[in-house]
Amino acid sequence: MKNGSVVRPSPAGKPGGATRIERDTMGELAVPAEAYYGVQTARAIENFPISPLRMPRSVIRAMGLIKRAAASVNQSLGLLEKRQADAIKQAATEVVEGTLDGEFPVDIFQTGSGTSTNMNTNEVISNRATELLGGARGSKLVHPNDHVNLGQSSNDVIPTAIHIAASETIQRQLIPSLTRLQKALAKKAREFDKIVKIGRTHLQDATPVRLGQEFGGYARQIELGIARMRRAQEALSEVALGGTAVGTGLNCHPQFARKVMAIISKETGCPFKEAANHFEAQSAQDSLVEASGELRTLAVSLTKIANDIRWLGSGPRCGLGEINLPETQPGSSIMPGKVNPVIAESVTMVCAQVIGNDVTVTVGGQAANFELIVMLPVMAYNLLQSIELLAAASNNFAAKCIEGIKANEERCKSLIEESLAMCTALAPEIGYEAAAKLAKEAYKSGKTVRQVAREQKVLPEKRLAELLDPWRMTEPGGPVGSAGG
Amino acid sequence: MKNGSVVRPSPAGKPGGATRIERDTMGELAVPAEAYYGVQTARAIENFPISPLRMPRSVIRAMGLIKRAAASVNQSLGLLEKRQADAIKQAATEVVEGTLDGEFPVDIFQTGSGTSTNMNTNEVISNRATELLGGARGSKLVHPNDHVNLGQSSNDVIPTAIHIAASETIQRQLIPSLTRLQKALAKKAREFDKIVKIGRTHLQDATPVRLGQEFGGYARQIELGIARMRRAQEALSEVALGGTAVGTGLNCHPQFARKVMAIISKETGCPFKEAANHFEAQSAQDSLVEASGELRTLAVSLTKIANDIRWLGSGPRCGLGEINLPETQPGSSIMPGKVNPVIAESVTMVCAQVIGNDVTVTVGGQAANFELIVMLPVMAYNLLQSIELLAAASNNFAAKCIEGIKANEERCKSLIEESLAMCTALAPEIGYEAAAKLAKEAYKSGKTVRQVAREQKVLPEKRLAELLDPWRMTEPGGPVGSAGG
Amino acid sequence: MKNGSVVRPSPAGKPGGATRIERDTMGELAVPAEAYYGVQTARAIENFPISPLRMPRSVIRAMGLIKRAAASVNQSLGLLEKRQADAIKQAATEVVEGTLDGEFPVDIFQTGSGTSTNMNTNEVISNRATELLGGARGSKLVHPNDHVNLGQSSNDVIPTAIHIAASETIQRQLIPSLTRLQKALAKKAREFDKIVKIGRTHLQDATPVRLGQEFGGYARQIELGIARMRRAQEALSEVALGGTAVGTGLNCHPQFARKVMAIISKETGCPFKEAANHFEAQSAQDSLVEASGELRTLAVSLTKIANDIRWLGSGPRCGLGEINLPETQPGSSIMPGKVNPVIAESVTMVCAQVIGNDVTVTVGGQAANFELIVMLPVMAYNLLQSIELLAAASNNFAAKCIEGIKANEERCKSLIEESLAMCTALAPEIGYEAAAKLAKEAYKSGKTVRQVAREQKVLPEKRLAELLDPWRMTEPGGPVGSAGG
Amino acid sequence: MKNGSVVRPSPAGKPGGATRIERDTMGELAVPAEAYYGVQTARAIENFPISPLRMPRSVIRAMGLIKRAAASVNQSLGLLEKRQADAIKQAATEVVEGTLDGEFPVDIFQTGSGTSTNMNTNEVISNRATELLGGARGSKLVHPNDHVNLGQSSNDVIPTAIHIAASETIQRQLIPSLTRLQKALAKKAREFDKIVKIGRTHLQDATPVRLGQEFGGYARQIELGIARMRRAQEALSEVALGGTAVGTGLNCHPQFARKVMAIISKETGCPFKEAANHFEAQSAQDSLVEASGELRTLAVSLTKIANDIRWLGSGPRCGLGEINLPETQPGSSIMPGKVNPVIAESVTMVCAQVIGNDVTVTVGGQAANFELIVMLPVMAYNLLQSIELLAAASNNFAAKCIEGIKANEERCKSLIEESLAMCTALAPEIGYEAAAKLAKEAYKSGKTVRQVAREQKVLPEKRLAELLDPWRMTEPGGPVGSAGG
Repeated sequence: MKNGSVVRPSPAGKPGGATRIERDTMGELAVPAEAYYGVQTARAIENFPISPLRMPRSVIRAMGLIKRAAASVNQSLGLLEKRQADAIKQAATEVVEGTLDGEFPVDIFQTGSGTSTNMNTNEVISNRATELLGGARGSKLVHPNDHVNLGQSSNDVIPTAIHIAASETIQRQLIPSLTRLQKALAKKAREFDKIVKIGRTHLQDATPVRLGQEFGGYARQIELGIARMRRAQEALSEVALGGTAVGTGLNCHPQFARKVMAIISKETGCPFKEAANHFEAQSAQDSLVEASGELRTLAVSLTKIANDIRWLGSGPRCGLGEINLPETQPGSSIMPGKVNPVIAESVTMVCAQVIGNDVTVTVGGQAANFELIVMLPVMAYNLLQSIELLAAASNNFAAKCIEGIKANEERCKSLIEESLAMCTALAPEIGYEAAAKLAKEAYKSGKTVRQVAREQKVLPEKRLAELLDPWRMTEPGGPVGSAGG
Repeated sequence: MKNGSVVRPSPAGKPGGATRIERDTMGELAVPAEAYYGVQTARAIENFPISPLRMPRSVIRAMGLIKRAAASVNQSLGLLEKRQADAIKQAATEVVEGTLDGEFPVDIFQTGSGTSTNMNTNEVISNRATELLGGARGSKLVHPNDHVNLGQSSNDVIPTAIHIAASETIQRQLIPSLTRLQKALAKKAREFDKIVKIGRTHLQDATPVRLGQEFGGYARQIELGIARMRRAQEALSEVALGGTAVGTGLNCHPQFARKVMAIISKETGCPFKEAANHFEAQSAQDSLVEASGELRTLAVSLTKIANDIRWLGSGPRCGLGEINLPETQPGSSIMPGKVNPVIAESVTMVCAQVIGNDVTVTVGGQAANFELIVMLPVMAYNLLQSIELLAAASNNFAAKCIEGIKANEERCKSLIEESLAMCTALAPEIGYEAAAKLAKEAYKSGKTVRQVAREQKVLPEKRLAELLDPWRMTEPGGPVGSAGG
Repeated sequence: MKNGSVVRPSPAGKPGGATRIERDTMGELAVPAEAYYGVQTARAIENFPISPLRMPRSVIRAMGLIKRAAASVNQSLGLLEKRQADAIKQAATEVVEGTLDGEFPVDIFQTGSGTSTNMNTNEVISNRATELLGGARGSKLVHPNDHVNLGQSSNDVIPTAIHIAASETIQRQLIPSLTRLQKALAKKAREFDKIVKIGRTHLQDATPVRLGQEFGGYARQIELGIARMRRAQEALSEVALGGTAVGTGLNCHPQFARKVMAIISKETGCPFKEAANHFEAQSAQDSLVEASGELRTLAVSLTKIANDIRWLGSGPRCGLGEINLPETQPGSSIMPGKVNPVIAESVTMVCAQVIGNDVTVTVGGQAANFELIVMLPVMAYNLLQSIELLAAASNNFAAKCIEGIKANEERCKSLIEESLAMCTALAPEIGYEAAAKLAKEAYKSGKTVRQVAREQKVLPEKRLAELLDPWRMTEPGGPVGSAGG
Repeated sequence: MKNGSVVRPSPAGKPGGATRIERDTMGELAVPAEAYYGVQTARAIENFPISPLRMPRSVIRAMGLIKRAAASVNQSLGLLEKRQADAIKQAATEVVEGTLDGEFPVDIFQTGSGTSTNMNTNEVISNRATELLGGARGSKLVHPNDHVNLGQSSNDVIPTAIHIAASETIQRQLIPSLTRLQKALAKKAREFDKIVKIGRTHLQDATPVRLGQEFGGYARQIELGIARMRRAQEALSEVALGGTAVGTGLNCHPQFARKVMAIISKETGCPFKEAANHFEAQSAQDSLVEASGELRTLAVSLTKIANDIRWLGSGPRCGLGEINLPETQPGSSIMPGKVNPVIAESVTMVCAQVIGNDVTVTVGGQAANFELIVMLPVMAYNLLQSIELLAAASNNFAAKCIEGIKANEERCKSLIEESLAMCTALAPEIGYEAAAKLAKEAYKSGKTVRQVAREQKVLPEKRLAELLDPWRMTEPGGPVGSAGG
C-alpha cells in the first residue's frame, strides 16, 4: 500500500484534446475522450478549483473495496446480473490497486458529503466495466447509479470508506512502524541498562537514573501508543453502510451492509461491522474525532521522545552530550561532532502537523446537522495524513536515529561524578546534616562530593567507594523516607 | 462530591492578623497563626500571585486519599508508628471530606510539578495531625516530610492524584449525568417513534425520517460517549505512585504503591494500578492527553445534539418548528412562542470550553523533559474542569431541555406533505421519469405532490394514499436501487 | 503566480538512470546525472522520506528572489565578480519563474531550520549557473556556498523566504480574491436592500431586517478581513536576513540585508525591511504566529457567512428558503429545487483546515530554543496553505455562489407576514398590552397578526396597513425604549 | 482594577432566608429579600447551575460604565428624567466600583447572548436606584427595562461590554506588566552585554553570541508584544452599541451610541467608536477572535523566553548553567544550587492556558447565526482570563525571575573556550582547511582549540590571543562568506 495523501494532477485533458459530450440534468458538458470519469466528475472539477489536495489513495482504495464487495453481494442477493457484477468487480479491483488513480481528480474541498468522490468512483467503474464488456465510454452498459451504486448512497459510502481507509492504514503502515520504533527503543533500553547518568527534574540535576531506564520509558510510551492505535481501530469499526441517504436504509437490502462488511473485514484484516445505529453513524462522525484524539496523543508521546533525544544529544562540547546521534547529513564542515538532530526535528514537525490536523477534525466533527455531517472530505484528508505522517516519521525515527544512537558513557559518568546528588548516597551513613554540609562545601569550592568526602575523610576509602556508586540509587527501595518535595 | 474547579480565597490571614514564624532553608517567614499550612505554602502564596484559580476540590480530595492510604500502608510495613499513622489518617480524612479546603490557597499557576500543592497537603496534614496529638502548629510532632510524605515524592504523588481525581469525577459525576441524558433521549426516541418528518441532508429536504429515529441517533451518541468515558478511565488507571523523584522508586518500599492503590481502588470504586513503567508514568502524561481527547469527543457529540435541538425548535413561525422546547425563562414578552434555546446554548458553550481545554492539555503534554513533565497543575485544572462542566451541562440539558421537549407533530406532517420527497414514493409504481415530471410540476406550481398526482390521476385514490404514506420510507428496504448520489 | 502547496515528484532519477558521483564530508553519493541539485539535496531525499508534501512554490520563488538580489548586492559591494553574479541572477530567475521546480524534491518534514531547502537552492543555482558559464554539473564554477550563499545562512534565509512568500501570496492571491468577494457581497447588499425579511436571534424570530442589511454585514466582515490581511503583511514585513547563523551577522556585509530587501520590496510590491533585532527575528517566529492568527480570523468570518448562506438557502420546501443558490451540480434528479450548498460547504471545509493549520503554526512557534526556531518548514507549509486555500475558496465562493444568489422575495415577505413580530409595530399606537394580547391570539389561532388585527378592528384599515409595513422596523430610531432583553 | 475572572458565590439567599415574591410572564418566583437582583436573575440562577465560573469583574464593571453613560445620554436627549437618571448613575457607579459584585451570581454557561447578565445588571441597578429614591426593592420606581435598559438590547450591550472590558484590562493590567517585563529584559541585555557565550542552533554549539544579545532578543519580543496588544485594542475599538436587538437600531435614538461611547472612551482612556456596520458588529465577533490571536501570539513569545530561561539556568552541575535564577522557594535541602525554575514554569503554564483559551474563542466565533452570535459569555470569559493571566504572569516573571537573574560568567567563558567554534576565528588567517584540521584534532583529543593551536604553534601567541577572542564573532561583518548551511 503506497503512501496516500497524494496530489494527483487533473487528467482533465490537455487543452484542445479530444472530448466526448455527456449530459446530466443540468445539460451537456465536454469530458476528455479518454477519461473513465464522466460528467459529474467533470462538473466537480469545474466547481472546486480550490487546491492541489486530492482524496487520499487509501480512501480511493477503500472506495474500490466497497464497490467490489457491493457487486458481489448484490449479485448474490439476485439484484445484479453476473455479467455486470463481474465487470464491476474487475474494474473495482483496478481502483483498489491504484492503476486508475489518475481518474480521481476531484478536490478535497468539494461537497461536504464527498458525493463528488462517490460519483467519480461510480463513473470510473461504470466506464471501465462498460469497456470490459465491449461498450463505449459513456454508454453505461454498466450504469454508475443503477449498478455500481446499487444499495448505496454517498452518505453511507463515504464515511464507510473513511473508516476502512483509516483502520487499514493504521494496520498496514502505522502499527508496523510503531512496532519497529518500539523495538528499537527497547533494544537501546537493554543496551544502555548499565549506563548510570544524572536524572533531571525541572531541568535540574536530580538523583541518578540509568540511560536504559529512560529509553525503557520511551519504549513503554510507544507500546501504549500501539494500544491506542488499536483503540482507534475499534472506534472506527462501526460503519455507516446500509443507512443510505438519511440513515433509514431506504432502497437497500437489509442484509446488504452486513454481507459487504464481512467481505471487507476479511480482505483488510480489520474488523468492521454495520453500525448499531445508522442515524448516529452518518449524521455525525464522533468516531473519527475519537480516532484523531488517539493519533494526536501518539504525537504528544513522540514529541516528548524526540525532544529528549535532541537534548540528550546536545553539544558536542557545550550541551548535555550524553548520547551521540548518528550523522545523517554534514553538520558544520569546520566543527566536527556537531550533529544536528534533524531526524528528531522532522519528527517534532510531523507531530505539530498532527496536532493541528486534530483540531481540523474536531472542527469538522461539529459540522453535523440533522441527517448528515458535511465536512467528510476534509476530515478524511487530515485523519489519513496524520496516520501516514506518523507512520513514516516513526519508521524513519527508528531507522535513521534511534537504532544508531550511541551512549556517551564517559560523559554520563563524569556528570554524575560532578553532581551534588552524590551526597544523598552518603546521608544514610553520615547523617543528613553532615551530607548536606558536605554538598555545600563541594558547591562552594567547585569540587566533587567525592573529593570533599575524601579530603574530610568522612568515611574509610573503601566504604566511600561503595556508597558513592550511583548505580545503587537507580533501583527502587533503599532507605525509605520522604522522597523529595 | 461537590463540584470542584472552585476558587478558594486565600486564608493567608487578614492584614495585621496574628502570625507564627516558621523557617526553611531560605530563612524565616510569617505564617498566619491559625493556618494549618506552613512555610512552604506561605512561600508559594507569595511566589504565585497569578490567578484566582485553585487546585480542583477533586484533586485535593485525591491528595487526602493518597496520604491516608500511605499512612496505613507505611504503618503496616512497619515504617510509621501507629500513633502518628492514626493522626495522619484522621487529618487526611478531613482533607478528603473537604473541611480543610480553605487551607489550600496555592495558585494553579505554580511550579509545574505541583510540588507546592504536595507540600501544602503535607503541611496541612502535619499540623492538623500534630494538633490531634496535642502538639502546637509548627511543632511537627507529625512531620510533613518524614511522616506524611513518607515513601512519596511530589513527582509521583501529583500525577497519581490527578488520575484519581479525574477517574473518580468521571465515575461519580459525569457517567451518571450522561446516563440520565442518554435515558432522556432514548425515552424521547420511543415517544416520537411514530412521528414522521422530513429528513435533511446538506440542510436540504431529503427523504423522510421519524423524529424518534433522530432522537435514537442522539441517544446512541451518548451511549457511545459513556463507553468513551470508560475508556478514559482505563487510560487513567495506571498511576505513577512508587516512582518517587525520578521514577526509580528510590526511598520507597517496593510494595508501597501497590498496597496504597489497592486501598484507593476500593475506596473510589475505580480500578487503579501501579504503572507498568514508572519512567513513562511520570516523565510524561500521555494518559491525560488521551483522556482529554475522549472528553472533547463527547463535547463534539453534545455540540451536534444541542445544535440539532436548537434548529428543530427554531421559529415559532419562521423557522423549522418541528419540536417545542420547554420554556425556562421569559422570551419576548410581546412575541408568544418565542422560546430561546438557552439551555442548548449553554451546552454548546460548555463544549467550546472543553475543546479549548483539550488544546491546553495537549500543549501541557508536550512539556515533558527528561524525568518530569512540568505542566501538571494546568493539565489537572483543565481536565477536571472539562469533566465537571460536561457532567453539569449534560445533567442540566436532560433536566431542563430534553425531558420537556414536545414534538410539533402537525408541523412535521405538514412539512413532509409539502415536500417534493413524496414523489420518490411514487417512482417504483409510476416510473422514475413520470415521478420526476410530477415533482417538477409541483415545484413550479407551488402545489404538493399529492395535489398534482390527484389532479393528474396518475393512480387510483386509494393506491395513491397507500403510496404517499411517508412512514414507509423511514424503514430499511423498499425497492432496492441506487440510494442517492 | 501559480498556486503553490504542490507536491513535486522526486526527480531523483529513475532506477538505473545515469548518475554522477558527488562527495561531501560524509563521503560519496550518487546524484542523478541530469539533476541540477547536488549531494546535499540527495542526502536530504534519503534522510526524509516522510511525505509527499514539498515546500510551497511561493517559498521556492522567494528563495530565487533572495538569491538573485543577493548576487546583485554582492556584486555591487565588490564581493562577487560580474560573470558569476550574472550567471547566478539568470539561474535564480529560472527558480523564481518556476521552470526549475522539479529540482526541489526535499520533503517538508526535514531539518527544522529548512537548511536542506536552502542548500537545495544553492546547489540548483550553482549547477545551473555553472552550466550557463559552460561548466559541467558538479564542477562548481559557481560555488553553492561561496557564491550563491554568500553573506547568508539558512537560519536567516529561510525565515526571510517565508515572510516574502506569505506576504506576496497575500498580496497577489488573497487580497484580490477577498476584494472580489467583498464586492460581490456589497453588490448583493444593494440589490437586496428593499427586501424585508424576518430577523433571527437565537435562531428565533425577531424583528425584521432587510436581506440587504444581512449581506451588508457580510461585506463589512470581508472588508475588515482585507484590513486584517494588511496587518498580517505588516507583521511579516521585518525579515531575518542579515543575521546569518546566530543573529550576530557574522560573515555578512553590514549593508547586505538592507540592500537586498530594498530590491525585493520593489520586485514584489510588498514592503520588507531588515529586522530591528536579528536575535528576535530568527530565534523565534512570532510574526508567523500573528499572521496565522489573522488568517484564522478570516476563516471564522467566512464560516459565519457560508453557514448563513447555507441556512438561508435551506429548503426548497422544508427549510428557510429565503434565498436561492445558483445550481452548480445536479442535486436530486427527482427532487427539483434541491440545490445542495456545495460551494458554501467547500468554503467551510477550507476554514476548518485553516483553523487547524493555525494550531500547527502555534505549536511550531513554541519550538524556539536559543538562537533558532526549528519548525520553520512546517510553519511555512501551513501558513502558505492557509493563504492559498482562503484565496481560492473566497474567489470560488464569489464566482460560483454569491454572485449568482437570487432572493426569494415572496418567501421573505410571507414569513414576515406570518411572524408575530408584526405586533411590535402596533404597540406604540395601541399600547403594549393590547399588542401582546393580539399576538397571543394570533399564536393560538395560527392566524397572522394582520388577520387578527383586522378581525378585531383595532385600527382603521389604512392606518393598519401603514403600521404593518415591516420596512419601518428595519431602520434605526422609531419609538425609543428598552430594545429587548 | 482588581483581577477579574473571579468566582462569586451565589448570594441567592441562605436556605430559609427571607424572600420577596416577584413575577414575570412565566409566573411568580421567590427572590432573596435582601437581593438587589430580581426575578430574571433568579430564573437564570435556577436555569444554569453549571459551574462556579462567573462573568469577569471587568465585564461587570463595563456593564456599569455602559448603564451609567446611557442614563446620562438618555437624559441629555430628553428621554429620561433627571431624578431617575441620577439614581441610575449612582447605582451604576456602585456596579462600576465593584461594591455590588455579590449581586451578579449568573453562571458563564448561560444564554449565549449574555441576556441573563444584561438583565441581572438592569435589575440590580433598578433596585439600587429605586432604593436611592426611597422605593422598595421590586417596586421599580426605576424600571429595569424602561429606564436602565433604555435604547439598549442585550444583543448590543453585551458585546460592547466585552470590548470595553478587554480593551481596558489590556490597558490597565497587561500593557503595564509587559512594559515592566520589557524593561527588565532590556536592563539585563545591557547588564550582560559584555558576556560572550556559545550560540546554539539545533541545540548544537554554534558561533558565539553575547548573553546580552539573547536578552535583547527577548526584550524585542516583548516590545513587539506590546505593539500587538495595541493592535488588539484597535480590533476591539468598534462596538455594537446602537444596533439594539438585530442590528437595525430599532427603538434607539440615532445619536445614542455615539454619545455613550464618547463618554466611555474618556472614562477608560481607550478609544471606542460606534461600529461602522451594526450587522457585522453583533452577528459576529471576529474582533474578539482577532484580539485572542494577538494574545496567544504573546503567549508564544513568553513560552520561548521562559523556556530559554529554564534551559540557560539548568544545572547546577549537569546542565547549561549559564545563568543563575533567583531562588524563590527551597529546592532540594541537600543539593545546594538546585533552583527549580518555578516562576518560568508558571509562565509556560499560563501560556498553555492562553493557547487553549484561544481555541475556545475561535470555536465561539463560529457560533454566529444570522443576527446574533450565541457564545458571547464563554468568549468573554476566556478572552478576559487570557488577558489577566498574561498580565499577572508577565509581572511576576519580571519581579521574581528576570530582575534577579545573574549571569554565570565563568561558565559562559569556559564553555566558549571549550567549544570547537573557536576554530572558525582562525580560518581567515590560517585557512579553512587548516582550521578544520585543528578542530578535528581538538575534538579527537578532548583538548580546546586554543591548546592545540598553541601546541602546533600555528600562529604567534599574541596573534592567537587576538584572534581567539570570541567577542569579535558576536558583531556583524568580519570576513564575508557563506555564513553557514
